[in-house]
Amino acid sequence: MDEKVQIFDYERIDDLHCKGLKVIQNPNFFCFGIDAVLLSGFARGKKGESILDLGTGTGVIPILLSAKTKAESITALEIQQDSVEMAQRSVALNGLQNKIKIIQGDIKEVPKSSLARKFHVVTSNPPYMNEGGGLVNPDSAKAIARHEILCSLEDVICAASMALMTGGRFYMVHRPHRLADIIVLCRKYKLEPKRVRFVHPFVDKAPTMVLIEAGYGANPMIKVEAPLVIYKSAGEYTEEIYHIYYEEGQV
Amino acid sequence: MDEKVQIFDYERIDDLHCKGLKVIQNPNFFCFGIDAVLLSGFARGKKGESILDLGTGTGVIPILLSAKTKAESITALEIQQDSVEMAQRSVALNGLQNKIKIIQGDIKEVPKSSLARKFHVVTSNPPYMNEGGGLVNPDSAKAIARHEILCSLEDVICAASMALMTGGRFYMVHRPHRLADIIVLCRKYKLEPKRVRFVHPFVDKAPTMVLIEAGYGANPMIKVEAPLVIYKSAGEYTEEIYHIYYEEGQV
Repeated sequence: MDEKVQIFDYERIDDLHCKGLKVIQNPNFFCFGIDAVLLSGFARGKKGESILDLGTGTGVIPILLSAKTKAESITALEIQQDSVEMAQRSVALNGLQNKIKIIQGDIKEVPKSSLARKFHVVTSNPPYMNEGGGLVNPDSAKAIARHEILCSLEDVICAASMALMTGGRFYMVHRPHRLADIIVLCRKYKLEPKRVRFVHPFVDKAPTMVLIEAGYGANPMIKVEAPLVIYKSAGEYTEEIYHIYYEEGQV
Repeated sequence: MDEKVQIFDYERIDDLHCKGLKVIQNPNFFCFGIDAVLLSGFARGKKGESILDLGTGTGVIPILLSAKTKAESITALEIQQDSVEMAQRSVALNGLQNKIKIIQGDIKEVPKSSLARKFHVVTSNPPYMNEGGGLVNPDSAKAIARHEILCSLEDVICAASMALMTGGRFYMVHRPHRLADIIVLCRKYKLEPKRVRFVHPFVDKAPTMVLIEAGYGANPMIKVEAPLVIYKSAGEYTEEIYHIYYEEGQV
């Protein structure tokens, strides 16, 4: 860990329970949730591969992926300058400057940027809510992270498609009620859905999240996996969730 | 029951465990499976509505729907003349001639037929397998019921769309690995996916079936439901499956 990293008094340092990794968070910004952790457990990065994380926020996804996958390098794009700067300090706090690069930029600019066709893997935990129009404060950092204000689901999927090399893989976490939009847009941008897993709070409840893997230029044939269940009883995680949260690395 | 219905010695009569209903089956043809029963439990038919079942086979779906829904009339289309004739005898066996009409016809002809835009509800348990090309006997009754020989998934979805009135609902059971195709084709034909339920043999296993409801001209917003689990232990049905199999009517 780099001891010289500055932490402001309105910030906090959270333990990621994974190889001693930590992340700086600002409670006034959007703080990462279980969805980011589950995406990091769902995504696969092989030896020598490069990963691009779209809309990285705190940088929690690249930080976790650096420990949970064998990927060689991770680039993470974030549009909000304050978040970029904070995520860069989190990377430094973990001494991961050689592996993770946080860059400021707009997802919508990816297709025409130097990032195009450069990555084996793209990940994203994008804004979920598509009702940004009526927000009281659409400029707030939290609103931008949660609502489709600066980028739509289509922008994210288009950027992922354009950033991937042929044979590359896209991993996203989203809400199940957008499943039809996700699948139709993935296919529109030649990202064929290959693996889907629904995340249920309890085994007999409707899912609240969906994890999806799509292959750039892959053949149609989707594998829907066993349900990922969060709680076995109120407040008590299932074994699988416990392992995702506390495992020391990916198999 | 009509006692004058003829049963041939190569046929058998199976009890549907629902209001005394029975169905005639020929073991040399395709016999109905749990998928047809689950579709009949998933589909909803309101008072006064008309239902069209595409590719009805034994007629088990219209027979079950006559008991499980409040629909007024059910039309069932089947291309194989032997199956049509056998399903008609099953309807007579249950004394349902006034409610269910089995007609011979090709799903592909629906869009230009007198069935177009006539129904509130369309149901289908279509052939699942899209590898019909290498079959030893593509003319066999079983192969036609199981493989996309005489109609493709797109033919079924197109026919369903064309048979429905505005606001009508389409219910289908299929295989999860075709999920992306199903969703993309539904949207292509203005059948917006509204409700999806995956059927898992056990709670920790991948689903083997998917039940889907789509609304003709509906708004995008899908509800993925809690998993439908078949067995709680080897050979022992869950309560929910038991109720679907043995209930006397729909709520």
